[in-house]
Amino acid sequence: MDSKLDLTFTRIVDAPKEAIWRCWTEPKLLLPWFCPLPWKTIACEIDLRPGGIFSSTMQSPEGVTMPTGTGCILEVVPNQRFTWTSALLPDYRPSLTLEKCGGQDGGFMFTATIALEDCKTENGTGTRYTATVLHADEAGCKQHASMGFEAGWGAALDQMVAMIKKGI
Amino acid sequence: MDSKLDLTFTRIVDAPKEAIWRCWTEPKLLLPWFCPLPWKTIACEIDLRPGGIFSSTMQSPEGVTMPTGTGCILEVVPNQRFTWTSALLPDYRPSLTLEKCGGQDGGFMFTATIALEDCKTENGTGTRYTATVLHADEAGCKQHASMGFEAGWGAALDQMVAMIKKGI
Repeated sequence: MDSKLDLTFTRIVDAPKEAIWRCWTEPKLLLPWFCPLPWKTIACEIDLRPGGIFSSTMQSPEGVTMPTGTGCILEVVPNQRFTWTSALLPDYRPSLTLEKCGGQDGGFMFTATIALEDCKTENGTGTRYTATVLHADEAGCKQHASMGFEAGWGAALDQMVAMIKKGI
Repeated sequence: MDSKLDLTFTRIVDAPKEAIWRCWTEPKLLLPWFCPLPWKTIACEIDLRPGGIFSSTMQSPEGVTMPTGTGCILEVVPNQRFTWTSALLPDYRPSLTLEKCGGQDGGFMFTATIALEDCKTENGTGTRYTATVLHADEAGCKQHASMGFEAGWGAALDQMVAMIKKGI
């Protein structure tokens, strides 16, 4: 917590935490209370896992549907702690486009995953190494590609494998 | 994966995945290989947990230090899968300021956490309910506060507790 950047409130409520957890994580139980009346929540999607969707659609008192707020779930500790963010879309895709990030070189947002699997090689058993980077839009993806994503990450991997062979 | 938005490459390498995992997650083992030469990685910080920091500082061949890229770790599956993002800072704080998000109402990024703890109430056992929202900058925090964060989230909580008391 940073008091200049963050907001928080604490309440002691007369309800068990298991019931409150269900009201936050089961769409049918979220719809009735999630918006202060006379606003309504008319749709909700929850995939209760880190990386899963947390999204809701609201309706104004005049009946106007508001654009869905779609976020990504980050922490799921049943009956204790639930965290999500609007900075990411489901499966950790960044939500901010290159234009909104400023547009200059390297201004794009990305989420990177390194995945490792055992596999057979000429010398016995090695690794299938997969590097994946997600972007918010095509512009960010193209900028990253033009900066030499595969050549750069591949050259670094070659350096790593050479280092491992020397002994770590 | 979305082929228009994402980049990926796969390599079969002659090294065990346990060694590759160490090279990605131990700063001392990351420094030697992380940048394609003649660039160097001169500093690295890793707190290996979801929400932990992943950061590195690079140096150009001319000796110029590049601003640190600081990201947030999202997935840690030892020897299998490592994911982090530049869209969040450590502990899930959004990295994009209100100005870069467009600045209009609701344009700020946030990360929200709902924390629940058992506690005693007049009627027996209830819940200490804490809602916390993190922002990238003071401007985003002020905009969220001025939109009625506490009143709105508090009114919704009152609706939820009333619903629970009727039976869910």
